[in-house]
Amino acid sequence: MSAAVPVPAPPPVDPATAGEMAREAAAWCALHGLVVGDRADPRSATVPGVGLVHAPFSLLPAHLPESIWRQACELATIFNELVDRVSLDGKFLQDSLSKTRQVDDFTSRLLEIHRKMMEINKEENIRLGLHRSDYMLDLETNSLLQIELNTISTSFPGLGSLVSDLHRSLINQYVHLLSLEPKRVPGNAASSKFAEALARAWAEFNVDSAVVMMIVQPEERNMYDQYWLTNHLKESYGITTIRKTLSQVEAEGQVLPDGTLVVDGKKVAVVYYRAGYTPNDYPSEAVREWSARLLIEQSCAVKCPSISYHLVGTKKIQQELAKPNVLERFLENKEEIAKLRKCFAGLWSLDDEEIVKTAIEKPELFVLKPQREGGGNNIYGLDLRETLTRLQKEGGDALAAYILMQRIFPKASLAYLVRGGICHEGLVISELGIYGAYLRNKDKVVINEQSGYLMRTKVSSSDEGGVAAGFAVLDSLYLTDK
Amino acid sequence: MSAAVPVPAPPPVDPATAGEMAREAAAWCALHGLVVGDRADPRSATVPGVGLVHAPFSLLPAHLPESIWRQACELATIFNELVDRVSLDGKFLQDSLSKTRQVDDFTSRLLEIHRKMMEINKEENIRLGLHRSDYMLDLETNSLLQIELNTISTSFPGLGSLVSDLHRSLINQYVHLLSLEPKRVPGNAASSKFAEALARAWAEFNVDSAVVMMIVQPEERNMYDQYWLTNHLKESYGITTIRKTLSQVEAEGQVLPDGTLVVDGKKVAVVYYRAGYTPNDYPSEAVREWSARLLIEQSCAVKCPSISYHLVGTKKIQQELAKPNVLERFLENKEEIAKLRKCFAGLWSLDDEEIVKTAIEKPELFVLKPQREGGGNNIYGLDLRETLTRLQKEGGDALAAYILMQRIFPKASLAYLVRGGICHEGLVISELGIYGAYLRNKDKVVINEQSGYLMRTKVSSSDEGGVAAGFAVLDSLYLTDK
Repeated sequence: MSAAVPVPAPPPVDPATAGEMAREAAAWCALHGLVVGDRADPRSATVPGVGLVHAPFSLLPAHLPESIWRQACELATIFNELVDRVSLDGKFLQDSLSKTRQVDDFTSRLLEIHRKMMEINKEENIRLGLHRSDYMLDLETNSLLQIELNTISTSFPGLGSLVSDLHRSLINQYVHLLSLEPKRVPGNAASSKFAEALARAWAEFNVDSAVVMMIVQPEERNMYDQYWLTNHLKESYGITTIRKTLSQVEAEGQVLPDGTLVVDGKKVAVVYYRAGYTPNDYPSEAVREWSARLLIEQSCAVKCPSISYHLVGTKKIQQELAKPNVLERFLENKEEIAKLRKCFAGLWSLDDEEIVKTAIEKPELFVLKPQREGGGNNIYGLDLRETLTRLQKEGGDALAAYILMQRIFPKASLAYLVRGGICHEGLVISELGIYGAYLRNKDKVVINEQSGYLMRTKVSSSDEGGVAAGFAVLDSLYLTDK
Repeated sequence: MSAAVPVPAPPPVDPATAGEMAREAAAWCALHGLVVGDRADPRSATVPGVGLVHAPFSLLPAHLPESIWRQACELATIFNELVDRVSLDGKFLQDSLSKTRQVDDFTSRLLEIHRKMMEINKEENIRLGLHRSDYMLDLETNSLLQIELNTISTSFPGLGSLVSDLHRSLINQYVHLLSLEPKRVPGNAASSKFAEALARAWAEFNVDSAVVMMIVQPEERNMYDQYWLTNHLKESYGITTIRKTLSQVEAEGQVLPDGTLVVDGKKVAVVYYRAGYTPNDYPSEAVREWSARLLIEQSCAVKCPSISYHLVGTKKIQQELAKPNVLERFLENKEEIAKLRKCFAGLWSLDDEEIVKTAIEKPELFVLKPQREGGGNNIYGLDLRETLTRLQKEGGDALAAYILMQRIFPKASLAYLVRGGICHEGLVISELGIYGAYLRNKDKVVINEQSGYLMRTKVSSSDEGGVAAGFAVLDSLYLTDK
């Protein structure tokens, strides 16, 4: 079944012109660092500068009503604050995730580290969050609904912010063919804003010789997205970034008696995770990666994110927060609470027998989400029906490994997507991510702001949202009056 | 035999640090558009944005005495003027190249077009030259000697100008390890200067709807060097560039009765050749490419270069200009003449029996250069002796296909070269190219300036200088006191 209503308008240019624009755009990408490692080249995930290909992109920006855009931007600072507040309630996190821990080893390990930190009353004075809240615009209700809130390793601040420049440049160049105004593509400062937040956290840490440590996967084709932040940190703030895998941190890292984290001989001011969000990042039998995670957590380095910020971003907590009267435990401002609640889609745990029954009857209205990060595991349609029926028969804890979510039906449009130098026309849907940066040192909120955006567009037959997974392309926004 | 004196100082960093720096530098290249098409990818020469790899580069800039640098820069405007003056003397060009035309079909075809233009008294009011004069620093005489003067398709203004930024960035980042000062790496504005010259030529042409047409090869792995100029023309001046092969110009081009060149329905203000300098660029049996060249020459579009500027850049003319009292025919200023002559290496035609005899006896002191452009065909050492002996026996016109040049012995140093993500240490020599831009509209000289530089460094066992040919890497300069 398709989520698309099949009456989209045709794209504004013919295929031949689109092909010419795609060539210009792909050259632009090569000049401006909008590149990824090409999976066809075996060295592209480990050796910088080789096996490069332009990042997949949409030829023209996705349309979005300006009112929806403003609504999404406004939510960023409220979510930032919510994450911080929830993270302070260790008991809430432990209790909410208690069932999940029994069925998911990954969450269980995170909770174990979190418990240890609670036991020693670990204080995190400098708290840095670089978040992204992802939304879709639901066609039936014409409302902005949250897909998920990412609190760790939010990707594409570096590359995503270039796409609006690319689109403005193309609109300018083809202004005679397109009835589009460049100024309606909002600027996207995600790259510099995230770098600024990392730099200010580094400044709050206040050790001149210290570095930012980026935790990376051993193989990373999206490394240039990360290198953009490294580049900004060096060029704008003179701050050095080192790249380490969790396994390298285990081998080369130590915490000094005063709490200082030292890795490879360098004092670390800020640990910025671009890995560690999926069980795949902790592969070692000897649990070396988990030791590294614990070591970092025990140190006084600023963690982006801390273990508690990480846990707040789990789907289970998202579902708990959507329950009646839960937001009120963490926020006072009724207006802000109402704004958050307005963007919550229906979210249920599987111990709600009524909703499970409905989902088996009408699986097309739901998504079944496993309690794990990284994308690519959501269950839809007939698979959803079968899985729920099986889980019900099995009974017990297995149900706790999933949550049910209302399925969102976004508007589908015809668009040109460019991948590997080839321009394809297709029916697409888009997902809007709003970045937020939050930095607090004890009682002083240093930063709480919306920090750019990520538009991802995917062919509407694809059910998953990961660009790196090969289903979607990077996009930007074109603001419309309605 | 080697041109290197084997007592170079070691590079300033150890191999492990060099490897780390090379990774940082290669990532920088990917972010900043210092890329080329990878020959391992068959699409990389025809499809923009795919099969990219960082351009080969030297890890640290090549040292050069500041006095030599100033001397080279000063020569740029004098050579610009010399090219313009010589180009006006059609009879000199035809006479000097009369023997060459009998042995080289390529030069013959160029001369034929030139002759036709003389016959119709073709006027070129707007004259645009984008030149590069290449030098080496001769170790024995400690003097700057000219290798050649390029008046067509001078490559690497786009990429070469990025290398000084890369080197400054690395020197800043590793300032604690390197006793180098970033400010001693001269800025390199070749990219923006060439774009400015093209834009001002376009402005002198004064047709708002007209485009710049870049003549390109059908396959071009160095396309990003060219796209940088296209990008500057669009972003800074709003000027559109179209890319056409000579074969496409033949198929899609026409000259209107008023002289306007129209290609693919677009009026052309400036024709900028990045192809057409080698016989390989005119492959068609049906001489379609030569028709295109003639068509362009007959039009009133600004040619960069015109057929006469092109001919001034031949090696034969270089050799003619080096003869006693020839410079005096074209320039008045004795001081400027002396400056030019000081940088001339020994140059001889093969009808000088005395010098041919010497070269056969001491081939290590000479280079035998064929009368064609594109690099890769020079003859050295024992090959030179054999070729000269053979040519002498054959006698007649065959000798006119070559010129003899004094061999220059540059200083060799140890350096790290990075290619394909791999850092190699090697004994290297460097060649300095100084770009010059010249624009004249009737009697008004609009631009005559030095416009950045290109440093190329190659392993000293390689006798050729072409980076694209795989023997050399892009480099920048580090100015020393002596």
